[in-house]
Amino acid sequence: MINIYLDKSKGSDYLYKQIYNHLKQSILEKKLSFGDKLPPKRRLSAQLNISVNSVTNAYNQLYAEGYIYSIEKRGYFVEDIAFLDNNIKKSNIPKHLKEDLTPKDDWLTLSHIKSNNSKFPFLQWIKYQQKAIREHGTELADISHPQGPYVVRKKVASMIALTRGVKCEPEQIVFGSSTQTLVTQLSIIAMNLSATKVAVENPGYPRIFKLLKNLNMNIIPLDIDNQGVVIDEVKEADPNFLFITPSHQFPTGTIMPISRRIQLLNWVTNIDENHYIVEDDYDSEFIYNSDNIPSLYSLSDNEKVIYLGSFSKTLLPSFRISYMVLPPILLEKYKHFFSDWTQECNLLQLYTLYHFIESGEYQKHIKRMSKYYNYKRVRMINALSSFFKEKVFIHDIPAGLHFLATFHTDKTYKTVKQKAKEEKLEIYTLEHYLISKSKDFEKGKIQLIIGFSSIKEGVIPQTLERLYNVLYK
Amino acid sequence: MINIYLDKSKGSDYLYKQIYNHLKQSILEKKLSFGDKLPPKRRLSAQLNISVNSVTNAYNQLYAEGYIYSIEKRGYFVEDIAFLDNNIKKSNIPKHLKEDLTPKDDWLTLSHIKSNNSKFPFLQWIKYQQKAIREHGTELADISHPQGPYVVRKKVASMIALTRGVKCEPEQIVFGSSTQTLVTQLSIIAMNLSATKVAVENPGYPRIFKLLKNLNMNIIPLDIDNQGVVIDEVKEADPNFLFITPSHQFPTGTIMPISRRIQLLNWVTNIDENHYIVEDDYDSEFIYNSDNIPSLYSLSDNEKVIYLGSFSKTLLPSFRISYMVLPPILLEKYKHFFSDWTQECNLLQLYTLYHFIESGEYQKHIKRMSKYYNYKRVRMINALSSFFKEKVFIHDIPAGLHFLATFHTDKTYKTVKQKAKEEKLEIYTLEHYLISKSKDFEKGKIQLIIGFSSIKEGVIPQTLERLYNVLYK
Repeated sequence: MINIYLDKSKGSDYLYKQIYNHLKQSILEKKLSFGDKLPPKRRLSAQLNISVNSVTNAYNQLYAEGYIYSIEKRGYFVEDIAFLDNNIKKSNIPKHLKEDLTPKDDWLTLSHIKSNNSKFPFLQWIKYQQKAIREHGTELADISHPQGPYVVRKKVASMIALTRGVKCEPEQIVFGSSTQTLVTQLSIIAMNLSATKVAVENPGYPRIFKLLKNLNMNIIPLDIDNQGVVIDEVKEADPNFLFITPSHQFPTGTIMPISRRIQLLNWVTNIDENHYIVEDDYDSEFIYNSDNIPSLYSLSDNEKVIYLGSFSKTLLPSFRISYMVLPPILLEKYKHFFSDWTQECNLLQLYTLYHFIESGEYQKHIKRMSKYYNYKRVRMINALSSFFKEKVFIHDIPAGLHFLATFHTDKTYKTVKQKAKEEKLEIYTLEHYLISKSKDFEKGKIQLIIGFSSIKEGVIPQTLERLYNVLYK
Repeated sequence: MINIYLDKSKGSDYLYKQIYNHLKQSILEKKLSFGDKLPPKRRLSAQLNISVNSVTNAYNQLYAEGYIYSIEKRGYFVEDIAFLDNNIKKSNIPKHLKEDLTPKDDWLTLSHIKSNNSKFPFLQWIKYQQKAIREHGTELADISHPQGPYVVRKKVASMIALTRGVKCEPEQIVFGSSTQTLVTQLSIIAMNLSATKVAVENPGYPRIFKLLKNLNMNIIPLDIDNQGVVIDEVKEADPNFLFITPSHQFPTGTIMPISRRIQLLNWVTNIDENHYIVEDDYDSEFIYNSDNIPSLYSLSDNEKVIYLGSFSKTLLPSFRISYMVLPPILLEKYKHFFSDWTQECNLLQLYTLYHFIESGEYQKHIKRMSKYYNYKRVRMINALSSFFKEKVFIHDIPAGLHFLATFHTDKTYKTVKQKAKEEKLEIYTLEHYLISKSKDFEKGKIQLIIGFSSIKEGVIPQTLERLYNVLYK
């Protein structure tokens, strides 16, 4: 006879749970053992003075989970259950892994990552999203082609042919949620080709550096001069994949001149097959005082340059839409390794993007933002110059959403970073982007990456005051 | 003197482009060489009878791209340009890489991947999306915590504590766009720990198998019996990561009974630190005739089980939202390797999900879909049984969005797959999910994974007729 104390105050759904839990515990604690017969449902329900249904539900659940088995016309019996080890105890996460949730509302920022959300046309976006829902309902109920829906790839292909001189087939485009995941895929191909020697710009993009390091790639940092990576050093390093940002070097802002581009293209064209240039064109849509600078890819033969594009700067960084254009040989490898990859991007957003481009709204948005960002850029340069006077040198290259500024000060990067925390000012130092450090790096100057896209005009004076305290107090 | 033929019929913007292109070509083709002086702007504009502005724009663009340099008060001069190799020629992609764009409108499907979009509450979703835009505007202009926004992780943590018995801290949750990208991250950690021995279920999930193979992991396929993987074989394989689907084995549908779960937990708890169970809980939200089966994680000590969850089945597969729950030790490693990872999921969708769960709509949607899917499941089982009679055996496990059906036929998998193409019927065979094949696998039967979530009732008879032709004609 089974003794169950039932709290009947909480309804029949709860009654079933009580019976289930009681029997489950009894079995796990070996109070009921293998082969023990459970009381027939009717008898137990009569004994407990509850409906047969509650008992049936409890037995069904125990059966589904494998605590009991049934023999036709004989009833339910306790299963042969392995004994759960006593040393299985819930542990908590240690304190140092707890996240700091202090709000940063009173911080000011010079971030180059944040974009300006107040200018984003959410209403338009939602309008085209509704169109996407109406027109692509069937596709939304499925996963797409590993590289993303064909129509969206086709749309982007014709757009970048016009805006970036990137002439490619939709087949060559691979969508991904970020440059990082796309570079992961490239690295997987590289590993399987034993082509793991990669070169990156120094200073450069530490996210990519760290990722390549995690993937155990053989990484060579290449110091840049005022035009970008140096051809002789590239030749000596002989990388399988050379990662560069010719349109607007990250973080120094240099635009690689045509001559350097041609040198690099000649190098990669005349070398054997497992050598590629990866052109990361992360913010080339924003160029002021001149037309777009054609991509390095546009001069190439479609065989040796991998083009990386992103919508993080032109739309919102939180949307997570990037893409790469693969040369045919790499495309063939890609299809071999990723034939059953599921496309990472949210398809609703990809189809929305399709309609956003198709309607012309995307180019209009870029034009609008370009004007606004240039205004902000000039505003910020003027503010810095008149505040810091001869203490600051601004590397004024009219492109992108950030510029490099050199401050003459005796402070070290370490102190400056500490002070910035105290002053509640988010800054990004050049040191942060150094993949490897030269010995005379830190001599009487601090170089900062100044992002101007998200800073609100009203707080510029206060931001500069905090920056002054960080650098000189 | 420079001779430029200008087509003046197309406006001044076009004029600037003509001058720019003419000079650029002349420089690239060495008609103008290093040090050659360009005519002063005024003189050229007078000569061509156009505005100075057009010439200025052309010179500015050539300057920005590095074709010319300027000396103050002396004018513009041609740069020292490297010569572009003659053998750089545009190539097209080869024919076999072209995608087949034939529409499949006249195909019928038994897919288990497609979900039912007609039941998805898009209107509600958009409503909560608008709330997300209103309340999280600042966050949308930025990238988030590498693991995803804290509030969304917190919301999911409290939800899975209730629905799946997964008691964890928000710190332990990592969002990702798919199981594949999350498993890639786990594999990167594994590689760096030299813990690359992994075991997978056979039959199992080929996407994960292929991914692990691409990453050069050491993979051991484990045959399953009618309860899942066998403990003695697990012990012999001694994997660092054991991938299992205890709630609803993919693809056979088996629900792993409690006893097998305890055996596996005891194994992993008593072995040294670099051993983990990865519980892929891909469709556990749908279980019929009983309550949810608690996850394997719920019985564990929070140290040795990695829980993988997904919103692909409960929302839409095209939304690309998955997550994993990491034990503290692995979390620590994760933070080491992925401290500057950018969260892959679209943040607007993550915040929308937050409000969707918060409002109770998510659970309501699951309840509604659960009813609908069970109706479809029973409908499909009855239709198959009465159509194929003794020719079919249905592995009727009341869970998930697919079941396994065994058809007695002398046809081979190869013929069946060929016939399915001819009949325009999308099918998924058990063979497709076999990681390694046992010798007596193909003997007088064909096993199919029957997905029932997306099939429309009206086409069931026609679908079964095509299936009959595939299997018996």
